[in-house]
Amino acid sequence: MSGSPPWPTSITDIQPNSVRVRGYDIAQLMGSVSFGAAVYLLLKGDLPDEPTSSLMDAILVSSVDHGATPPSVLSARTIASTGASLSAAVGGGILAINQHHGGAIENCALALQAIVRSADSNGDIDAAASAHLNDLKASGKRIAGFGHRIHTNDPRTARLFELADRAGRSGKFIDAARAVEQVFADRGKALPINVDGAIAAVLCELEFDPTLMNGIFIIARTAGLIAHVHEEQQRMKPMRRIDPVNQIYDGPEPRPVPKRSPGS
Amino acid sequence: MSGSPPWPTSITDIQPNSVRVRGYDIAQLMGSVSFGAAVYLLLKGDLPDEPTSSLMDAILVSSVDHGATPPSVLSARTIASTGASLSAAVGGGILAINQHHGGAIENCALALQAIVRSADSNGDIDAAASAHLNDLKASGKRIAGFGHRIHTNDPRTARLFELADRAGRSGKFIDAARAVEQVFADRGKALPINVDGAIAAVLCELEFDPTLMNGIFIIARTAGLIAHVHEEQQRMKPMRRIDPVNQIYDGPEPRPVPKRSPGS
Amino acid sequence: MSGSPPWPTSITDIQPNSVRVRGYDIAQLMGSVSFGAAVYLLLKGDLPDEPTSSLMDAILVSSVDHGATPPSVLSARTIASTGASLSAAVGGGILAINQHHGGAIENCALALQAIVRSADSNGDIDAAASAHLNDLKASGKRIAGFGHRIHTNDPRTARLFELADRAGRSGKFIDAARAVEQVFADRGKALPINVDGAIAAVLCELEFDPTLMNGIFIIARTAGLIAHVHEEQQRMKPMRRIDPVNQIYDGPEPRPVPKRSPGS
Amino acid sequence: MSGSPPWPTSITDIQPNSVRVRGYDIAQLMGSVSFGAAVYLLLKGDLPDEPTSSLMDAILVSSVDHGATPPSVLSARTIASTGASLSAAVGGGILAINQHHGGAIENCALALQAIVRSADSNGDIDAAASAHLNDLKASGKRIAGFGHRIHTNDPRTARLFELADRAGRSGKFIDAARAVEQVFADRGKALPINVDGAIAAVLCELEFDPTLMNGIFIIARTAGLIAHVHEEQQRMKPMRRIDPVNQIYDGPEPRPVPKRSPGS
Repeated sequence: MSGSPPWPTSITDIQPNSVRVRGYDIAQLMGSVSFGAAVYLLLKGDLPDEPTSSLMDAILVSSVDHGATPPSVLSARTIASTGASLSAAVGGGILAINQHHGGAIENCALALQAIVRSADSNGDIDAAASAHLNDLKASGKRIAGFGHRIHTNDPRTARLFELADRAGRSGKFIDAARAVEQVFADRGKALPINVDGAIAAVLCELEFDPTLMNGIFIIARTAGLIAHVHEEQQRMKPMRRIDPVNQIYDGPEPRPVPKRSPGS
Repeated sequence: MSGSPPWPTSITDIQPNSVRVRGYDIAQLMGSVSFGAAVYLLLKGDLPDEPTSSLMDAILVSSVDHGATPPSVLSARTIASTGASLSAAVGGGILAINQHHGGAIENCALALQAIVRSADSNGDIDAAASAHLNDLKASGKRIAGFGHRIHTNDPRTARLFELADRAGRSGKFIDAARAVEQVFADRGKALPINVDGAIAAVLCELEFDPTLMNGIFIIARTAGLIAHVHEEQQRMKPMRRIDPVNQIYDGPEPRPVPKRSPGS
Repeated sequence: MSGSPPWPTSITDIQPNSVRVRGYDIAQLMGSVSFGAAVYLLLKGDLPDEPTSSLMDAILVSSVDHGATPPSVLSARTIASTGASLSAAVGGGILAINQHHGGAIENCALALQAIVRSADSNGDIDAAASAHLNDLKASGKRIAGFGHRIHTNDPRTARLFELADRAGRSGKFIDAARAVEQVFADRGKALPINVDGAIAAVLCELEFDPTLMNGIFIIARTAGLIAHVHEEQQRMKPMRRIDPVNQIYDGPEPRPVPKRSPGS
Repeated sequence: MSGSPPWPTSITDIQPNSVRVRGYDIAQLMGSVSFGAAVYLLLKGDLPDEPTSSLMDAILVSSVDHGATPPSVLSARTIASTGASLSAAVGGGILAINQHHGGAIENCALALQAIVRSADSNGDIDAAASAHLNDLKASGKRIAGFGHRIHTNDPRTARLFELADRAGRSGKFIDAARAVEQVFADRGKALPINVDGAIAAVLCELEFDPTLMNGIFIIARTAGLIAHVHEEQQRMKPMRRIDPVNQIYDGPEPRPVPKRSPGS
């Protein structure tokens, strides 16, 4: 494209013997910041403080895998079983992360932002949550991020909110999520905040753009997809019929996470 | 598939209100281990010790992005420019991580393993490296992981070896990589270990299966792909011609990574 | 999924030594109908008459390739240059067929349908076209399928309408497309019907669901993608920089299509 | 990439108001040649004669769909069920066309070419076939393109050979395939030529490069994938569990292909 001006990008500057991500030397970042902090840096443009860095890692860890029933894993394993490369199978798995799988994070975030905006002008988060659910119901829609087909009390939700609180990042979006849960409870519906809803609330607290939230889920779940594709390639026969439900876990028995020194 | 026995997976056990990755409760992992440690757990089956956990994060951080010229970024941005979803564009970017992009890690690891095996029986790592390079040359092949079209002295290599040493994980695979570099130097060729070679050597020290090493690169680079696709969607016009070279960085100026307390 | 009822599909029935597509034995279809007729059968559920069958082939032929500048080709070649398999490179190319590339067919069809509906109640296709363009303009939108950055008089458009006419399938959707073109001309704008608009009009005449029209383009263009990926793999070096514009055609000189007996 | 020379492509020449595929004006091709002939032109560089053109269409029609159990359909439907776009779901389906699904065509072709080469020097196709199978067995391999898990007598095979014969394209590669089948029969094994093997033999007769044969399957099957993804999107609920086996066909009853005038 002779003569055209160069096109701009503000992410990474590559020079001979120098790689700078958002202005930071990557060799300096290595060993200084966690991967969660690097993700935050890439997507928000600045490094997080240390508690937020740990919170980012916790969000990523929460989404790293959810067994072999989600459609991203089933499509990745199905592709892998035909003799595909690792990257083709994982790429095919990521294609399944959309509105109905992973995408609940973005949609829940949009709802929580609407509720918070409404509460900011009207002063009452519970009323705002109730009104928002009424509006959704009237238009035949449902709020994303509440209820789960397996978990009635998702262990990841409480943990994430606890960690957000510890990091000083618990605010009105988490309040809004709890208000929605309470409105459901008051109406006799057990639709607790699920992990998607909890991540949405926390990422709103961290001021992420909702259109990027699905991306954070994709980054985390890619790790699980790699593990599943590798297991499929190493352990299973090619072209097997992959049942989406009739599965059994035969890995390590339950075991406690070892205690570590603070900050690790 | 009525009547078939369930098929086994040893990665994650899902029960009502319980998600256990390789036996560990995910809520316990959240806030206790870094994402790098979770990746190690998923792919190796056990949690790493703390220095190895930090080393895993450093490996992931080293590969998080390398600007907008790699083919994975160009394919992801090209797909994004047509109005694709985030997951389709990122999935399409991952399809470009293969033998010639990212795959150098696996191929370099296989070479280093061969050299170490040879040295283990013959006792001399330098002679083993020299003989391996001669063999490759005789069959018209090149060793992966050495030399770079931009970096003559890749800043990530020295840093990664320093961090491996600090974690007590510097051993004969890193020795083998250095021996290869020295053989090249003795022959008058400036082909220093590049970041792929350095990652290969360190992942060999951590006893990763080479077929998984490309996967670790994929996990890390997915973060960069998300950032590039988002920038393309937010900042650029649809259907623009994306020049693979004629680009300019207009992000933050160089800045130092802030000092942190140990272990963060 | 023991105990679940089987899930239904109405496309193809597989029995031992029998493959029936929409009820037709595939061995009987082979040699009796063209690929275009088979596509029509798959997507509409019935076989077309012979003139429509030829028209389907003409539509597919019109979209088979458009050189190496479209984003689907650039992403497919970029992926191929990294050592990807044929299917991964072609799959990655298809990911780039969306709203801004290929998708004009669907969007133009929706506009033509709206214009025809409006004319059906008001009686005047020209007034309906004019009003529709005014509405779009008022909401800051543009109609898809008109104008082209290279072709001022797309040779495929006239040919397609001629073949539709010969097949007795020229009706009010083609009239609507021409009315839109005329409105533009009357307003001093040279925005002739492009090949996407022409295909949209003809597929409306054939009563295809607009959500399937992008699919017909995908089928046709897959042929071109295979040719481009193969050329990239056979002729070009891995990891080359693929300029999106600075290309030169060096294939066969212009030559006339040989005369054939009717119906071939 | 200022200053670089343009890179060459020999597929399609785009000029204002002119699109020429391998030298032929696309508007002239439309209505003059079938899609099968256009595929042949794209991949071989020249137009086929009329009988070969019909044979190409028959090959494409033979592979257009095989129900909802192949992995390409299962991955495409799984991705579609998450809310993916048509192109993402179809692209994900194509990723599953590899060595174990579709790839049998290429592998069988390589075997048939080896047998024919051997017979060309030794004079006896049956001996060559027998020796080749012995060699494969000795190295623990199996020949691709023979036997099928559903069809003991694939109706597509006989039909394809009949059409090749009618087109005057039945030669030594088809002989080699039949010789292999006979060797198996003589050894008491019922491993008849399946559709992949038959396509491989015929494409060898047409002198296609084996690395392109998988591509011809991809083109054909893309049509089936479009139909399946559309059915999934229109008829099924999002995020359903897609059983790979427990399915029922509920489409049109068996019906005869209507008689047509010759050449249609």
